[in-house]
Amino acid sequence: MADRPAGAAPAAPAGPQQDRSRQTRRRLLETTVRCLATHGFQASTVGFIAAEAGISRGAAQHHFRTREALIVAALEHMFDERVALLDRLAEPAGAGAERVHAVVAGLVETVGGDLFRAALQVWTVAAADPELRAAVLPLERRFARGAHERAVRLLGVDDTDPRLRALVQATLDLARGLALAGVLTDDARRRARVVRAWSDQLAAALGAD
Amino acid sequence: MADRPAGAAPAAPAGPQQDRSRQTRRRLLETTVRCLATHGFQASTVGFIAAEAGISRGAAQHHFRTREALIVAALEHMFDERVALLDRLAEPAGAGAERVHAVVAGLVETVGGDLFRAALQVWTVAAADPELRAAVLPLERRFARGAHERAVRLLGVDDTDPRLRALVQATLDLARGLALAGVLTDDARRRARVVRAWSDQLAAALGAD
Repeated sequence: MADRPAGAAPAAPAGPQQDRSRQTRRRLLETTVRCLATHGFQASTVGFIAAEAGISRGAAQHHFRTREALIVAALEHMFDERVALLDRLAEPAGAGAERVHAVVAGLVETVGGDLFRAALQVWTVAAADPELRAAVLPLERRFARGAHERAVRLLGVDDTDPRLRALVQATLDLARGLALAGVLTDDARRRARVVRAWSDQLAAALGAD
Repeated sequence: MADRPAGAAPAAPAGPQQDRSRQTRRRLLETTVRCLATHGFQASTVGFIAAEAGISRGAAQHHFRTREALIVAALEHMFDERVALLDRLAEPAGAGAERVHAVVAGLVETVGGDLFRAALQVWTVAAADPELRAAVLPLERRFARGAHERAVRLLGVDDTDPRLRALVQATLDLARGLALAGVLTDDARRRARVVRAWSDQLAAALGAD
């Protein structure tokens, strides 16, 4: 990867030119996520993404020399956005089973959505492409750690208890499974029933029912 | 789709020529699944698959006129194989929580694996391709129904109870989420811990602990 996303870099001098450059970079990354989610991996070339972002191909290549660099940076960007979404999840109201339900519903919503659709495109190609896979794996691990930490904090779980730790992981795996089901069929009602049944069980396991 | 897979067709006259034709068709479908899982969607053209199967391109096109027809038939074939795998899952031994654990572990193994990797390639392309999506959706629904029926039977659950029905669905969504995680990282040990933690919860919900 050529460089780090703007959000993770140390504070840079904030002249108008740097601002413009950062804005262009961000617009490219966001457009990449949208193109992946809507048009799929094959259609998402640097030229197509630059055109969709209203940026010249040359300017796009100034930021990302290769398509792989752009896609990996977009994946990193979307993982950071998803973790930031988890951080912005309101401190759940209520107590006991209702609180657990609010947290699980929030996790499921955050793990799914457009960012999931875009990530799925990259994962699937990476599954058959060792080079892309090597670039994606460390990001994937970092995101999994970040999501797990947020889930533990929101649920107020003792993460040193192996059983509770495994149940938090199971909840995130469930969220991913529901997101995958949602890619083909919009099954919001079924999803709501599954989330309710799961969170009741989780609340019982946490002694919160 | 041009025609039905051999397994689902009514008994045909079993001359040596029909046998050879059925064998060729089956080899093409199995090779398609393997090519999708190993090389991804883009690489899996009719020409590539025919060469991998040791069949001439013309013979392959005699069975499937278009790439989409071949891929959709292969998806149907692999869903049928997965449901057949579920039917072949040994009647789980033991009782109570151990029995529930054996069933959940069997479901997770069956939903994952090479067939999942191949299906993932098709789902992901279908997510951004309305025509392929329309061809895939009915197969997907049929497979989901088949898997749910087998899970209900193996777990001995009363499927008219909405809570238990949702818990069986959650178990299959969890299996799909674990399979997706396994596509990038081979996390068999983590998976085993998650399966154990969830099946203990499910056993408690079913009153089997």
